Amino acid sequence: MSNWRKQDLVAGEALARCAFLALESETADPPGVTRKAYGEGEKFAFDTMLNEASALGAEHRYDAGGNLFLTYPGKDRSRVVQIGSHMDTVPHGGNYDGAAGVIAGVAVMAIFHAAGSKPPFDLCVVITRAEESCWFPYSYIGSRIALGILDKELLNTLKRSDTQRTLSEHIAEEGFDPDGVRNGESLIEISRVVAHIEPHIEQAPVLVEAKKPVGVVTGIRGSFRYRTGRCLGEYSHSGAMPRQYRQDAMAATAELIVRMDDLWKEMLAAERDVTVTFGEVTTNPEQHSFSKVAGETHICLDVRSQDQGVLDDMREKYIALALEIGRRRNVEFDLGDISGSTPALMNENLIELMKSAAEEANIPYQVMASGAGHDAAMFAQAGIPTVMIFIRNQNGSHNPHEAMEMEDFEKAVEILANMLARPPEAWGE
Amino acid sequence: MSNWRKQDLVAGEALARCAFLALESETADPPGVTRKAYGEGEKFAFDTMLNEASALGAEHRYDAGGNLFLTYPGKDRSRVVQIGSHMDTVPHGGNYDGAAGVIAGVAVMAIFHAAGSKPPFDLCVVITRAEESCWFPYSYIGSRIALGILDKELLNTLKRSDTQRTLSEHIAEEGFDPDGVRNGESLIEISRVVAHIEPHIEQAPVLVEAKKPVGVVTGIRGSFRYRTGRCLGEYSHSGAMPRQYRQDAMAATAELIVRMDDLWKEMLAAERDVTVTFGEVTTNPEQHSFSKVAGETHICLDVRSQDQGVLDDMREKYIALALEIGRRRNVEFDLGDISGSTPALMNENLIELMKSAAEEANIPYQVMASGAGHDAAMFAQAGIPTVMIFIRNQNGSHNPHEAMEMEDFEKAVEILANMLARPPEAWGE
Repeated sequence: MSNWRKQDLVAGEALARCAFLALESETADPPGVTRKAYGEGEKFAFDTMLNEASALGAEHRYDAGGNLFLTYPGKDRSRVVQIGSHMDTVPHGGNYDGAAGVIAGVAVMAIFHAAGSKPPFDLCVVITRAEESCWFPYSYIGSRIALGILDKELLNTLKRSDTQRTLSEHIAEEGFDPDGVRNGESLIEISRVVAHIEPHIEQAPVLVEAKKPVGVVTGIRGSFRYRTGRCLGEYSHSGAMPRQYRQDAMAATAELIVRMDDLWKEMLAAERDVTVTFGEVTTNPEQHSFSKVAGETHICLDVRSQDQGVLDDMREKYIALALEIGRRRNVEFDLGDISGSTPALMNENLIELMKSAAEEANIPYQVMASGAGHDAAMFAQAGIPTVMIFIRNQNGSHNPHEAMEMEDFEKAVEILANMLARPPEAWGE
Repeated sequence: MSNWRKQDLVAGEALARCAFLALESETADPPGVTRKAYGEGEKFAFDTMLNEASALGAEHRYDAGGNLFLTYPGKDRSRVVQIGSHMDTVPHGGNYDGAAGVIAGVAVMAIFHAAGSKPPFDLCVVITRAEESCWFPYSYIGSRIALGILDKELLNTLKRSDTQRTLSEHIAEEGFDPDGVRNGESLIEISRVVAHIEPHIEQAPVLVEAKKPVGVVTGIRGSFRYRTGRCLGEYSHSGAMPRQYRQDAMAATAELIVRMDDLWKEMLAAERDVTVTFGEVTTNPEQHSFSKVAGETHICLDVRSQDQGVLDDMREKYIALALEIGRRRNVEFDLGDISGSTPALMNENLIELMKSAAEEANIPYQVMASGAGHDAAMFAQAGIPTVMIFIRNQNGSHNPHEAMEMEDFEKAVEILANMLARPPEAWGE
């Protein structure tokens, strides 16, 4: 049982199907699609959304960095609910990562337009630039610019991976204003923003496995990473060196990995949110041999959690395990430099609002964390009440095989439309 | 209290010190020494030993492959005790690996010569060619030729790593007879050989740690190797992919390593002889990333034991563990091709004879296995009663820092002289 007439929802569906098709054919780069940050494909995608929204009566503005704000007027024009995501892709990526969130926002406009009704506040679809860090080696450039918080040094230091030209040059080339970015100009007045909502395809198979079309996201995991870890032992003869005299860097490394994996299991049993990944582990290829006890390994650890306390706890335990194993096995772990990001919790009121909007339409949902980073983390960290909705997606993301079903996408759009139909009180205003 | 007069032992010591010095200065290739198989340095070493032994009245013969047989006549000339090792080194190797065994044999001749006495049988110092497989990529070429068992195909297929010329060409160039090698000509009549003894520096720090000058070797470990193993999982997002859906090749590989290490501990506790080494382990460098669950690893295992039963047992357990872990963790282990070698047990009567010869001179010894391979394995496998004596050595072998103390070497020589002084009955004749 829907809040909306069938023909209102169909207006949103029709717009979305056309938009996905246009993007797929115009930005094709077999296999998959390529929409470079500040490139032609991204511009085509921005223009497509501008045309669709303008036809619905939306106003538009670009900020200094070229982020696009499409505003569908609401009853109270002093306040705004934002729906947003990005339009760039990785090279030969899929058509849905990023674009689905933007198209969902404009589809909601189409539903209100077809119904002839207005949301309680302005509905602003915020389309950000340059989210994929493969183009400029930095995360969330567009949303940082939108918020006026991009470190101005980066304009001249970040270079696009394919052109080796600076972010500043690329912004200027697209007709925007690097000086405005440098000065922190922003179209967002945080006090006016009631909510920021990012719809996005899920990048793991949680929803596929759970057989649920959508996910209500409770937080975006932060991380700590030791990307340059080493274990230092001593090379010796594999057949002649007795166990008790060995300084076997590989055996010690394997134990460290298994102990961290055991710890992960314990944390999950205690219902703590965390992932533990050793994605790169190698004995030193310049010196290793089948007949030598390994004297050195390279170790790379990535730990993520929504909960900063869990990250702190895991980090301490990693350091302690490395010390204990190192002492016992007569090797030395040099964990290397640490880097990472801060978890971003989603707004609890918005989470409840989203759940009840789903229940209203009888749409099953999964409550879950986001393991990957998203622009939404920037908005949340800027103090804007933020939430995300995930859409079920086969085959992961950042590859040509992304396979979101339109039925699932339409369920997410209906939930968003239901949310936007709620009165100001429901938004805590 | 020695069997020998001080001046007899000094004759052996003087010969040995001169020989080591000559080799060190004439085959210097800083850092360390280089004596290529069938090269100039090896020839100098052979000539040096020929001159020393000839001066003591020894007879000499070369076989078709250039192995040198230096025979000091004994009381019974129909039987022979062989002492032997090789004279080639790895590039920039140490002066003692190989040479110590040969020089020890000729030093024993010098002791008998100084004492004016004769061993019960002929004492034949067998100097083999081409033991180090860095020159021709094959093991024990010289001792296989000495026994007439080198696969004749190898004469034209094996190429020396520096010249890319064949083994056959190098044998001919040194003035020897590749056709004789091809026909399996051999100077060794196995039924005449009472014993083959190989003295060798130890290549691990067992004797250093045990504070014993010499080791009585019970066997030469055989091995099995899986050098091309892989674990195949699936790449996925490090932050987004939940534990239960992962196919993490690295986590599975680490568990396999730790479980094999645990098994090793259990075997040692049960006093079974074995070593377990994972010398090369890498996630696939072409695809791995800090933010990806690893989809593939390369795994290289080397297991050694004196006991073929232990090798068989460990191999079965490795296969079973890989299956069990693979199933549980939803990855597939492809262990790859197996290779290896057969263990060679030393002769029990000779082991006892060596121990009693050491006790006679109050020289402490360690009973131990050889983890590295040696020419002695070939003689043992040919059915000749064989034993090895290890000499304490600092800093391992195959490097310029080998550091055998002459005092330890002289103790080994005294043990050999004591053995050679024993009557035929002691040799089981």
